[in-house]
Amino acid sequence: MRVINFSAGPAVLPEDVLKKARNQLLTYKESGMSVMEMSHRSADFQAIADKAEGDLRTLMGIPENYKVLFLQGGASMQFAMVPLNLMTQHKKAIFINTGAWSKKAIAEAKKSGEVIVAASSEDRNFAYIPKTDAAMFAGDADYVHITQNNTIYGTKFNKLPEIGDKVLVSDMSSCILSEEIDVSDYGIIYAGAQKNIGPAGLTIVIIREDLIGNAADSVPTMLNYKTQADASSMFNTPPTYGIYMAGLVFDYLLENGGVAAMNRINIQKAAKLYHFLDNSSLFSGTVDEQDRSLMNVPFVTGDAELDKKFIAQAKERGIVNIKGHRSVGGMRASIYNAMPPEGVDALIAFMEEFETKA
Amino acid sequence: MRVINFSAGPAVLPEDVLKKARNQLLTYKESGMSVMEMSHRSADFQAIADKAEGDLRTLMGIPENYKVLFLQGGASMQFAMVPLNLMTQHKKAIFINTGAWSKKAIAEAKKSGEVIVAASSEDRNFAYIPKTDAAMFAGDADYVHITQNNTIYGTKFNKLPEIGDKVLVSDMSSCILSEEIDVSDYGIIYAGAQKNIGPAGLTIVIIREDLIGNAADSVPTMLNYKTQADASSMFNTPPTYGIYMAGLVFDYLLENGGVAAMNRINIQKAAKLYHFLDNSSLFSGTVDEQDRSLMNVPFVTGDAELDKKFIAQAKERGIVNIKGHRSVGGMRASIYNAMPPEGVDALIAFMEEFETKA
Repeated sequence: MRVINFSAGPAVLPEDVLKKARNQLLTYKESGMSVMEMSHRSADFQAIADKAEGDLRTLMGIPENYKVLFLQGGASMQFAMVPLNLMTQHKKAIFINTGAWSKKAIAEAKKSGEVIVAASSEDRNFAYIPKTDAAMFAGDADYVHITQNNTIYGTKFNKLPEIGDKVLVSDMSSCILSEEIDVSDYGIIYAGAQKNIGPAGLTIVIIREDLIGNAADSVPTMLNYKTQADASSMFNTPPTYGIYMAGLVFDYLLENGGVAAMNRINIQKAAKLYHFLDNSSLFSGTVDEQDRSLMNVPFVTGDAELDKKFIAQAKERGIVNIKGHRSVGGMRASIYNAMPPEGVDALIAFMEEFETKA
Repeated sequence: MRVINFSAGPAVLPEDVLKKARNQLLTYKESGMSVMEMSHRSADFQAIADKAEGDLRTLMGIPENYKVLFLQGGASMQFAMVPLNLMTQHKKAIFINTGAWSKKAIAEAKKSGEVIVAASSEDRNFAYIPKTDAAMFAGDADYVHITQNNTIYGTKFNKLPEIGDKVLVSDMSSCILSEEIDVSDYGIIYAGAQKNIGPAGLTIVIIREDLIGNAADSVPTMLNYKTQADASSMFNTPPTYGIYMAGLVFDYLLENGGVAAMNRINIQKAAKLYHFLDNSSLFSGTVDEQDRSLMNVPFVTGDAELDKKFIAQAKERGIVNIKGHRSVGGMRASIYNAMPPEGVDALIAFMEEFETKA
């Protein structure tokens, strides 16, 4: 019996994708071997990687002048790679601080140059996206960095900051493929795969070509975007099985209407849950309405003991990984693309029942 | 139908392990989810990681004062991490150059300090392990680096160089777990998993504790061994499925007699193949006898066209990925732990047949 898994990441995957992976686990098509056993230089694997990239390009409408890289190390490695490759002219970057992940990216950028925090929502424990205006981004800077959706606090930039002609770098780990975006608004988009794409250990980087090739010689070869772009992500052995699984997910998304269709469902799922929270006498959301995430929904009862009881009883019903991050407390439902509407319905039904009894 | 896969990596995995992975793909034990869907902070996944580490410690007899790290980025990332963390006192490291992988490690170390190449086998295209003596390692240096088994050329250090009290760093990507070693001879052992352990995207690092914590503040957080050791490899999301698969392989090895038993079989497999090569009138090995690898066996006919024909006909028999690396040419049979003796027998039988007809 499969549970209803609200994990923030690694997270639930489409059951159809898992079944396909299971069926191909010992022998992939006519290859006579598992994808895990394939040389990354083989024609079979090259076809898998090419299709994965092509499908991602279709799904996101990625323009020709952007490279798609399949890397390792997660968003945390990108926190270092971005400044090492981009902080080269002004040695300065502007950040909007929306919580823990922004802070880690800031700390890493400080190793490469000057960091200006244009705006922060730390005053209210990152429960909102801070307001910005064009003047904040007027000075010299190599790029502006945002955490587009903050997994921990459940906030999302529902409108991009007006940064003029600056290069926008976005950590999209927890919202990539959840809604349509215009890739050309960004210089770099990066995302750990383990939330909305596939298994952990794969990192997607979408980078505008003119931003590649400016790193100093002292930068480790593996951390230079040029190394990875020139070798089409095969400078060394890439995380082959992760790329395969991501490819199965991309294929599944295309077969199910693409990002537009996913977004419609995501809006419905989130709206139902937020509507319940807004009308509940027991539960309440923790994020300002206009900045709510479609993917991560934190909520509390206001009573830590009651939260605990709710989490424990939910688990007995097969509703798992609903515990909130320690910096927010309470509960958090991560409702990525792969969480079916029925999963959200089951959660709401249990919340209603719990509220009635409480 | 599964083929006989002599790939140098990613490489063949034990069929029993793949079957177990297939059976658990949708639901791991009582968890109600795939291992790919598990939070790395969950008790279920922690148990998987702990068992994998414990089993690896048992298999290799890893002493208490060594940390085991499950990282990402492959050996190529270690080429950078080792100097960034170790080249701190003398800013100098000594390398033995046994080919392409050594050269890449050397190039990366040069970004952090001075590199002394104590010995090289480049004069004969790395067909042997160069002789060394204690005097070569007498001067100051932060460490001595070797590529213990060179996948491309099929060479192996069958005896470690006499480096006195220097710290020995070994790239064991293609020979880890193939024979018993004394971990206390080394300061750091690292290995990409995709040859003798599991799927690509996982890197094993075994490091003596006193070598941790000396990196400069400028080193990216993710590349500091201290970050990874302090967080027990969970500073950020590790490659969870790769760790699970590696754990299944470790378990399989323990159930089948451990490294000693594997080594006995590996010696038999390699001896058969080398014996055939030594007595063939058509095929010959490319490596000096005393420096031959147990894992990677390169051989040639001396005629590039005939090599091509052999590779093509072998493929028709389900003997695949037998093409040699372009820098050696000819053929290469990678016969890791997971290659059953019957696979080697089938290869030899086909070579005999091909030789008779040629």
